[in-house]
Amino acid sequence: MKTLAKVLNLSTATISKALQDSYEISKETKDRVLATARELNYVPNPHASSLRKRSSNTIAIVLPEIADSFFSQAINGIESVINARNYHALVYLTHDNCQREALMFNELSSGRVDGILMSVASDTRDTAHISSLQQSGIPIVFFDRACDALAAPKVITDDLHSAYTATKHLLEAGCKSISLVTIDSCASVFLAREQGYRKALEENGFSASIVTCANGYFQENLEQIKWHITNPQPIGLLLTVEHLATTAYNACNEAGLNIPVAIKIACFTNQITAGILNPPMTTVLQPAYEMGKTAAELLFRRLSGKPLSAQEECVVLPSKLVVRKSTS
Amino acid sequence: MKTLAKVLNLSTATISKALQDSYEISKETKDRVLATARELNYVPNPHASSLRKRSSNTIAIVLPEIADSFFSQAINGIESVINARNYHALVYLTHDNCQREALMFNELSSGRVDGILMSVASDTRDTAHISSLQQSGIPIVFFDRACDALAAPKVITDDLHSAYTATKHLLEAGCKSISLVTIDSCASVFLAREQGYRKALEENGFSASIVTCANGYFQENLEQIKWHITNPQPIGLLLTVEHLATTAYNACNEAGLNIPVAIKIACFTNQITAGILNPPMTTVLQPAYEMGKTAAELLFRRLSGKPLSAQEECVVLPSKLVVRKSTS
Repeated sequence: MKTLAKVLNLSTATISKALQDSYEISKETKDRVLATARELNYVPNPHASSLRKRSSNTIAIVLPEIADSFFSQAINGIESVINARNYHALVYLTHDNCQREALMFNELSSGRVDGILMSVASDTRDTAHISSLQQSGIPIVFFDRACDALAAPKVITDDLHSAYTATKHLLEAGCKSISLVTIDSCASVFLAREQGYRKALEENGFSASIVTCANGYFQENLEQIKWHITNPQPIGLLLTVEHLATTAYNACNEAGLNIPVAIKIACFTNQITAGILNPPMTTVLQPAYEMGKTAAELLFRRLSGKPLSAQEECVVLPSKLVVRKSTS
Repeated sequence: MKTLAKVLNLSTATISKALQDSYEISKETKDRVLATARELNYVPNPHASSLRKRSSNTIAIVLPEIADSFFSQAINGIESVINARNYHALVYLTHDNCQREALMFNELSSGRVDGILMSVASDTRDTAHISSLQQSGIPIVFFDRACDALAAPKVITDDLHSAYTATKHLLEAGCKSISLVTIDSCASVFLAREQGYRKALEENGFSASIVTCANGYFQENLEQIKWHITNPQPIGLLLTVEHLATTAYNACNEAGLNIPVAIKIACFTNQITAGILNPPMTTVLQPAYEMGKTAAELLFRRLSGKPLSAQEECVVLPSKLVVRKSTS
């Protein structure tokens, strides 16, 4: 703006008002300013305009990991909404670590973003960093992994029902015992999946058996699952996280157990390779894209100051059991 | 700062100088300002400090898609570097569309980011939007998909050699004809993969056959591959993109062709499920995490004003052929 002012021999205040189409400036001056601005490739500084408007046109997407089909598809859904509104997205990966999550939230408290879309880290028990940001007036919408203790809109899927349906499906496929293979987490989705699993077993007089793995594709997880499936041998596995599929399939191969003859497997995952695995895998398919899209829409509703209805405060989108050979 | 000034009965200029530890302000006043700032939970506005420092502590990651193991692993590599430097990352998805890419670049020309890490869209022929940003002084480092026409550092893998090795491997596995299944693209990686494929065939007196698919997981791609593999039937397929693996496996299943008996398949992909597919798939595994990490490190070298050596201007990290049953 200083350059424009110098070139046109006007004050920077006049330039600023002309660029903002102020009524105080004549049409002739505005035209001159705009023509010169175009000539000089003037682009408004986003930090200056963020300061002025107290809005950054930026949101944060805070999520545990990105190498997971669910999250990558959810990001595509979010992106479809923010792109249409000319917003920008800062992406933060917590690597499922609450400490990192809290540090990132400190950085977000200063007006860098207008709002936050978030799926909490699996070990987030203390939510002070989240509520403190809410109190400072930055709206948060959860997708998938929500903090039930906090009053914030959330877009989730019917995890309890999905896990119940998948467990019942394994029972009907002839499994005489079923283990839940999961990760150590206090996130709502994992609790709901465990509840659904337990409910189906209890209704049918079976007892539960939970195998808790580290979160990530690790050799130790493979050894743990291998030990579990051979000693004593379970007949069905319900896996709560995508990366556990590769681990469990490898464990069965190494243990010489044929899927689905000796062991049946179902997994919560959106990976497109599920149908070409050996054998094709039964999955609980989540509406990832829709969940991301809906969460972003709710956030923009909040940013525009419109109140959300009770229904919108908690949107539950259905997942789908896709039956394949791994449970036949 | 206005609130602080009011509470302490000081001018905002004094507050500002005290917070910046200016020599003009007494230690006593500084201590008072800092104590009150802490009490009031004062956090500097990032837009104000970006304006002052002419630096945003933010970079942009511009990439074609996110639902792809290569890109998600590369983002993890990038994130490891920027996180350690307390930088932020805006993520832009071009969906492999040059028009969208150019629009996004317009938004980036205004100081929103200090630098850009980029993998170009597959249809980016006109690179004016990229060179115009370079001219405005924003450094760009390419990873994986580079624009060879532009003078900018890049971190790539040895695509020509990898494709050559994979094609030779298919020939040695007994394939009497090999097709390259690829997407329509002018990005350097796809040209290099085609060159490597052609080189291996020429050396062995075979002729090339290229199947060009739309970029994405589409039914039309499946039909196209199915038509190609049955009429006339090729013996080997080299796939240049991850999503083509699921499409090609499904096409073989629908056409009743046994992999690897009737047809052998190798694919450029980092997906962790490659080893549990039916059959396990031979892959060209790229050093995705390292590529992202190295590209980010080069960008920070550029941002710190340090010159890059000729070697650093083009870093080539080796990919690895992982042989599995699909080519046995």
